[in-house]
Amino acid sequence: VIHFVGARVLVTGGLGFIGSNLVHLLSRESDAQVTVLDSLGEGMGGNRRSLDGVARAPRVTVADMADRDATAAIVRGQDYIFNLAGHVSHTAAMDAPLRDAHSNYCAHVTLLESCRRANRHARIVFASTRQVYGRARSLPMSEDHPLDPIDVNGTHKLAAERLHAHYHRVHGIRTVTLRLTNTYGPRQLIRNGQQGFIAWFIRRALDGDELEVFGDGQDLRGMVHVDDATRALCAAASLDVPPGTVFNIDGERAYTIERLAQMVTTAAGGGRYRKIAMPPAWQAIHVGSAVLDATRFRTATEWGERVALEDGLRRTLAFYRRERVHYV
Amino acid sequence: VIHFVGARVLVTGGLGFIGSNLVHLLSRESDAQVTVLDSLGEGMGGNRRSLDGVARAPRVTVADMADRDATAAIVRGQDYIFNLAGHVSHTAAMDAPLRDAHSNYCAHVTLLESCRRANRHARIVFASTRQVYGRARSLPMSEDHPLDPIDVNGTHKLAAERLHAHYHRVHGIRTVTLRLTNTYGPRQLIRNGQQGFIAWFIRRALDGDELEVFGDGQDLRGMVHVDDATRALCAAASLDVPPGTVFNIDGERAYTIERLAQMVTTAAGGGRYRKIAMPPAWQAIHVGSAVLDATRFRTATEWGERVALEDGLRRTLAFYRRERVHYV
Repeated sequence: VIHFVGARVLVTGGLGFIGSNLVHLLSRESDAQVTVLDSLGEGMGGNRRSLDGVARAPRVTVADMADRDATAAIVRGQDYIFNLAGHVSHTAAMDAPLRDAHSNYCAHVTLLESCRRANRHARIVFASTRQVYGRARSLPMSEDHPLDPIDVNGTHKLAAERLHAHYHRVHGIRTVTLRLTNTYGPRQLIRNGQQGFIAWFIRRALDGDELEVFGDGQDLRGMVHVDDATRALCAAASLDVPPGTVFNIDGERAYTIERLAQMVTTAAGGGRYRKIAMPPAWQAIHVGSAVLDATRFRTATEWGERVALEDGLRRTLAFYRRERVHYV
Repeated sequence: VIHFVGARVLVTGGLGFIGSNLVHLLSRESDAQVTVLDSLGEGMGGNRRSLDGVARAPRVTVADMADRDATAAIVRGQDYIFNLAGHVSHTAAMDAPLRDAHSNYCAHVTLLESCRRANRHARIVFASTRQVYGRARSLPMSEDHPLDPIDVNGTHKLAAERLHAHYHRVHGIRTVTLRLTNTYGPRQLIRNGQQGFIAWFIRRALDGDELEVFGDGQDLRGMVHVDDATRALCAAASLDVPPGTVFNIDGERAYTIERLAQMVTTAAGGGRYRKIAMPPAWQAIHVGSAVLDATRFRTATEWGERVALEDGLRRTLAFYRRERVHYV
């Protein structure tokens, strides 16, 4: 990861799923001085254990990114900021929208305001979500697909994308947004069904429980291994792009959720799944099939999917067999 | 305003510009029991004086709508909620984005959450802004024009629109959004340049000062007298529309800003204007011409522009000549 030679790099949400994997990558493949900011907030993905075994230990600050003093102090002097902090549960956001607004919007305002005051030089990569599109009008969805999020979390992520764009255009702080799709891999909490269906499939398979597929299981999903996601984040950091630039990140193939259930049980060496009615809280914010077209990013960078899903699932299950106790 | 016979009506931001004019209308033309919630917050438009002379005095609660207890108590039993609370300055929002997020987003979350818990029966009319469109790709802009706000205030208003739509679709709380354009008339603060250019033109004309037109003055703007805006809000309250329905509100004609400067000086009985370079803070969030197509709303209701601009401006200036001391 050649761009980060000698660089100072901040990872917000750096104890979380994608953040901690990014810290591992940076410490293994660059000599960047890495700092982690993470709130270890209730219902979020932070886990101190996720930095175990990291090649070079980062400096870790446990604080809410919405805390102006903490965030102002930490952004100073950073060359790159990977802004990954936030809640990820869409159903939890519907139940606790103010909490979601705090972590998925107001905390980003604080980060950007801190940069405006203390560090306009940093390049920021913001991790957004395919949820900003809402229901697909056509598949796969390119970055030009209409933006019509149908839930609270997607609304906040979209507002945060726009804020990053405003600070680029108005204040000259270079930002770029990646819209991630379903990401899977090691170091994700598999404690409950709030971290995404694939994490929950993995947990059930690990425990020998039957997987539950909501509805008919025929919705399509793209899947990206977290190692591919973190390489995408690194590739995005050095791009010089106009304000408001966003890139989709997705894999090369899409799968039905039923097929994914089958693949998880296969990777686990056995197991069963059954279809159940979609719970009302999911039904209310159900987007249907969601597949992103990542051509724009693949064209702008050298990035492409490296981890095939079958192999990624096998490795992921092997990780959780060893580390289960720390993630459930 | 026949729909409100015997109804309980809450006006948030009811001491502000549009809110107080709505209270006057309701108390004059209906027997609704009106309650006002207003924070009288710094930099907002609230002014106790604006309810002077109201036909029937509403109950007034001064509280921040983001205060859960106050808001939960006040929404209970309301039949209609006109949700007009918020900051209006686009440049102030760029300077103080967290403050704007608080009043233009988080406070709406609190209102809607309060309704979810304590009153799902209320019909909510949310006052949004043409700023949600950003720069016009074609004129006039219909409701289907892409949504791409280029400033913080527009971003928060758009997120708040979406939140109203989610609560309609997911929780069954009937909401409808009106996207208002430049509104002018009595009871608007004319204290500084933060309440919109037309208020500031009026103030300068009133004081015999030269009006300042930013740039070449050739941007087009629609204008709506506040009496027409409040009648639109009332007409919207009784519509049965699908979740996420939005309506543009605009006048029948558009004017260049230079022409509006001329009309204000004419209405004032004389005065001059000059063109000056657009200040950087305005330049950064300048949308250019912005004219809305209000056909959808005119078709759905009996609403149409009643107050011609020349007449409206004359009456507005007459109001401020009498009441200047309370609004500067």
